[in-house]
Amino acid sequence: MKRIITLLAAALIAAGSISAQELANFRGGSQVKSPEMQDGKVTFRLNANYATVVNLSASWIEGAIPMVKGDKGVWEVTVDLPAAEIYTYNFVVDGVAVNDPQNYFVQRDGTRYLNMIIAPGERSENYSEADQRGTVSYKWYDSKILGINRRVTVYTPYGYEKNPKAKYPVLYLLHGAGGDEEAWSSMGRAAQILDNLIQKGEAKPMIVVMPNGNPNQQAAQTLGLPTSNLDFRNDPSLANAYVRSLCEEIVPFIEKEYRVIAKPESRAIAGLSMGGGHTITASNLYPAMFDYICPLSAAGSATPEQVAALKKAGVKLYFLACGTSDFLYEGSVKLDQTLTEQGLDHIFYQSEGGHTWANWRLYLNTFAPKLFK
Amino acid sequence: MKRIITLLAAALIAAGSISAQELANFRGGSQVKSPEMQDGKVTFRLNANYATVVNLSASWIEGAIPMVKGDKGVWEVTVDLPAAEIYTYNFVVDGVAVNDPQNYFVQRDGTRYLNMIIAPGERSENYSEADQRGTVSYKWYDSKILGINRRVTVYTPYGYEKNPKAKYPVLYLLHGAGGDEEAWSSMGRAAQILDNLIQKGEAKPMIVVMPNGNPNQQAAQTLGLPTSNLDFRNDPSLANAYVRSLCEEIVPFIEKEYRVIAKPESRAIAGLSMGGGHTITASNLYPAMFDYICPLSAAGSATPEQVAALKKAGVKLYFLACGTSDFLYEGSVKLDQTLTEQGLDHIFYQSEGGHTWANWRLYLNTFAPKLFK
Repeated sequence: MKRIITLLAAALIAAGSISAQELANFRGGSQVKSPEMQDGKVTFRLNANYATVVNLSASWIEGAIPMVKGDKGVWEVTVDLPAAEIYTYNFVVDGVAVNDPQNYFVQRDGTRYLNMIIAPGERSENYSEADQRGTVSYKWYDSKILGINRRVTVYTPYGYEKNPKAKYPVLYLLHGAGGDEEAWSSMGRAAQILDNLIQKGEAKPMIVVMPNGNPNQQAAQTLGLPTSNLDFRNDPSLANAYVRSLCEEIVPFIEKEYRVIAKPESRAIAGLSMGGGHTITASNLYPAMFDYICPLSAAGSATPEQVAALKKAGVKLYFLACGTSDFLYEGSVKLDQTLTEQGLDHIFYQSEGGHTWANWRLYLNTFAPKLFK
Repeated sequence: MKRIITLLAAALIAAGSISAQELANFRGGSQVKSPEMQDGKVTFRLNANYATVVNLSASWIEGAIPMVKGDKGVWEVTVDLPAAEIYTYNFVVDGVAVNDPQNYFVQRDGTRYLNMIIAPGERSENYSEADQRGTVSYKWYDSKILGINRRVTVYTPYGYEKNPKAKYPVLYLLHGAGGDEEAWSSMGRAAQILDNLIQKGEAKPMIVVMPNGNPNQQAAQTLGLPTSNLDFRNDPSLANAYVRSLCEEIVPFIEKEYRVIAKPESRAIAGLSMGGGHTITASNLYPAMFDYICPLSAAGSATPEQVAALKKAGVKLYFLACGTSDFLYEGSVKLDQTLTEQGLDHIFYQSEGGHTWANWRLYLNTFAPKLFK
């Protein structure tokens, strides 16, 4: 196949019918292998004959890692493979961030596309593709509350189509500040995690709904859609507009569009950082809507009265998670105390580290098996 | 919102709980605007204080375009805005390709992520988001013929969910060599083109199915799935395996999963380059399956007997398209002659230019209104 492509690329260029830029996928020139994992090490390489300084910037290593130029203009560095997890990296060529053109694995973080590696091991085993995979769909719904048509990512589990009479519980999974409706599927590996857990019989088959939590956005900015002109920060009539849209518009939309068990015991809500705040606000404003509540590294709080209302509503799982070095840790400790004082059975799951996707993947992988049981 | 994000980023970094790399979406430092369109010009800017040479590589301009360094380390160049179309570009910093970190608009071409601009005008007006948008889903089907579980992209038109009894015609839309099941939705803007045409009443509401045409691939390599070990090039029992899987597995799968009019008059097939070859092969092997056949810049041919079989089957539209400077143009001229000699009514749509996505978007925008009428 590679040979055919090379021949075709040569023919295309020779015929002058196509510019070299449009041939990105026909990768010519001197090929290097990057990254290359071997014997507990990982080697990164970049072809950059005219660069003065090339560094590796790696999410698991503090500071810049100098790369060394070989005799064919290929820069190289080998580092220890870190503990099992997903990590991101890029090269820095004369001060400018550059992706690894040899690495297919990329995640989007806002405007940046960062290369990924998955260091193998128990912790990351659910982050690669399972054999049985669900469907990921990008749908649109009209929000009257926010005044815009908005995109939502929906995961339906393997078997959804083959079991046309089955009804499913739903997890609403919310992103943080700077994220959008693709954050959990790109950086969070939500589809892979659910696929693996469901295939192993560890989690119930469920639908996962990942909306866009920025009330002024129609969708990820990658689509180039204009944002809303409403003043969500200052107009009091728009207070909690996104959470209201979630509970009064998105939940009914999903329950109409999909085969869903439309009851509190089959609804879960979880979110990270700002989305953890949305999770807490949703449970405060709509205490009887979700029986499973999972704020992760959350920016939010609940009063004793609000927690009492949740207890009265019969919440089945309250899974509070935070990294012990997270800058929001104290807020989680305080919420844990309020939950304890009000006698609401809950889990306070504390992990090492801070405000990172490594933790949020871990939390999803940990609480998803506890849902709807 | 931007202010909140900046404050949050500062808090996160101050707390030491997160590395700068994980804050890609919290874009700090000196911001530049790029690209900036104004008065028929477009300006590109890149912050690169330590670079020696920075060029712009633009799909609509031959050769490298030198950028000039300003006093704050920001490199800049202004060029004329080209005629209405989608164009791609990147920066080249000391010989290494770099994306524009300020531009959200990105398309994936194999392993490369290229920034896009849409030059406005009549030709590109269907390439931006319409007000009424369909759903794009990534589904999986089991292929016995290819021995792997494979991903397929499916577009369902606006209104599909709201009209639960409506049945729809289906366009099977195939990519070229080096592409995958995301090529038509990323580079081809297929969802935007169909959304706009359907909203304007110019095309019939239809489902569009975009499979992966590389028989050894389960899905786009961005997912990291292993490829098949079967020898598709040399094993004679695997001849035309992908086209057989398309017609004997994907078509039945779609007709079971979706509300589809499962008749030849409601099936269309179109494809570019290698996918144009697949289109011709499918119509040769299964002459009674598709009433609408659209080979685009196609790498393929049909014998007089095969064309006669299509005529006998009652093909309703044969839309053959090619750029006059395409390296495959002579093959299209020859096919046009065979179609004429056999008396098969057809359109030979010739455009300027060659083997480019600009042409393939134009062709889709041109033939989609002719389908199923």
